Amino acid sequence: MRVKLIVAYDGTNYCGWQIQPNAVTVESVLNEALKGLLKENIRVIGASRTDSGVHALGNVAVFDTDTRIPAEKISYALNAVLPEDIRVQKSEQVEDDFHPRHCDTVKTYEYRILNREFALPTKRYDSIHCYRHLDLEKMRAAAAVLTGTHDFKSFCCVNTQTETTVRTIYSLEVLRQDEMIIIRVRGNGFLYNMVRIIAGTLMEVGTGHKTPAQIEEALLRKDRSLAGATAPARGLTLVGIEYV
Amino acid sequence: MRVKLIVAYDGTNYCGWQIQPNAVTVESVLNEALKGLLKENIRVIGASRTDSGVHALGNVAVFDTDTRIPAEKISYALNAVLPEDIRVQKSEQVEDDFHPRHCDTVKTYEYRILNREFALPTKRYDSIHCYRHLDLEKMRAAAAVLTGTHDFKSFCCVNTQTETTVRTIYSLEVLRQDEMIIIRVRGNGFLYNMVRIIAGTLMEVGTGHKTPAQIEEALLRKDRSLAGATAPARGLTLVGIEYV
Repeated sequence: MRVKLIVAYDGTNYCGWQIQPNAVTVESVLNEALKGLLKENIRVIGASRTDSGVHALGNVAVFDTDTRIPAEKISYALNAVLPEDIRVQKSEQVEDDFHPRHCDTVKTYEYRILNREFALPTKRYDSIHCYRHLDLEKMRAAAAVLTGTHDFKSFCCVNTQTETTVRTIYSLEVLRQDEMIIIRVRGNGFLYNMVRIIAGTLMEVGTGHKTPAQIEEALLRKDRSLAGATAPARGLTLVGIEYV
Repeated sequence: MRVKLIVAYDGTNYCGWQIQPNAVTVESVLNEALKGLLKENIRVIGASRTDSGVHALGNVAVFDTDTRIPAEKISYALNAVLPEDIRVQKSEQVEDDFHPRHCDTVKTYEYRILNREFALPTKRYDSIHCYRHLDLEKMRAAAAVLTGTHDFKSFCCVNTQTETTVRTIYSLEVLRQDEMIIIRVRGNGFLYNMVRIIAGTLMEVGTGHKTPAQIEEALLRKDRSLAGATAPARGLTLVGIEYV
């Protein structure tokens, strides 16, 4: 059967999702844990290859197994052997031809910014600290410019190799929870570093270093150097993936 | 001059506040950082000697110095040399006879419990995970029993050495923020492990293993074995200390 996992992790101690030689990744740890549990040579397929240091509440992975353990019980057994910075939130059987990347999806990411004079140590793992005043109304104006279907060439890594840099952002919200500013974005897919570049750009608008009009120009000119800096990985969390 | 610091820290990697041989503590790291910064042999006096693994948003420390650096600038200079799990939130000059422990104070602690089926890795540093349903109304009923001035002998470590085990709890709230249950307690001082035993006891009431009436009996009988288990250190945060 094919089993789908919803996987949450603290990315701090991982070189991202994807397997690579001589590095500990979330994918490699999941494979090893499943191998130990099911006594089969399991290779999971992940929906989103998050970067080094990026977190997830709901990344998706699938794998095929001959196990007799009911699919919905695998989460419990797996969590008992996984390190505490990875926790499976759900396991269920899916159709044999379900592929987590070859589907239409809506992905939701959050970028968290602790906006106060001094950093708070207990918040440092999944947010970045910004002591400068951030003007949320300006950030929201710039966010409105980026919402919709656009060519996001200015908002991805310069050497991104992809058929098209057109993507659709369904919503891009700038929220405040006490001292935490949360940039929440939903879209049909994101280019390499795109969410972190959007976060870095909105922060530069918030501090007054860029204007919403400059963001509009950056988008139109398709020039990476006109957008803002790539915000650090630790502030980014993949919240979830909807299959639509 | 005497300088007062408000200190926040993630206690995960420290053997508590107080200096001890062959162990890294918050106090020892602060002393070393101040020594490097001020070129004087500084020894801070802390208000609350938090246990190994316990966090703080607002512990208080004082020290004497001959430096010409303005007291309110010391926080910035200190944060530049401290590790990222300790951050000074404020520095200010105080009266030469101000002692952070020999004063009437109100201390506020929070104990955080993530109440959902599976743990979330990014929340694991400053909360504990509980998958059992917690009945908040029962927890609040037990909290009401503990509020006020009582002999808390049943709610401290059995070999606590102190003149009196009578303390006053001004308020003991059981709050919910989404899936996070927060036990927030304000009092004029707490016995060794008292907040963690109160948290462990309220959790046992929440799961139905103890009743509010049993908590009343535990309080009256002055017998540690009648209260609940000591909850793990990682869920506890010293929120702040008011000098009244």
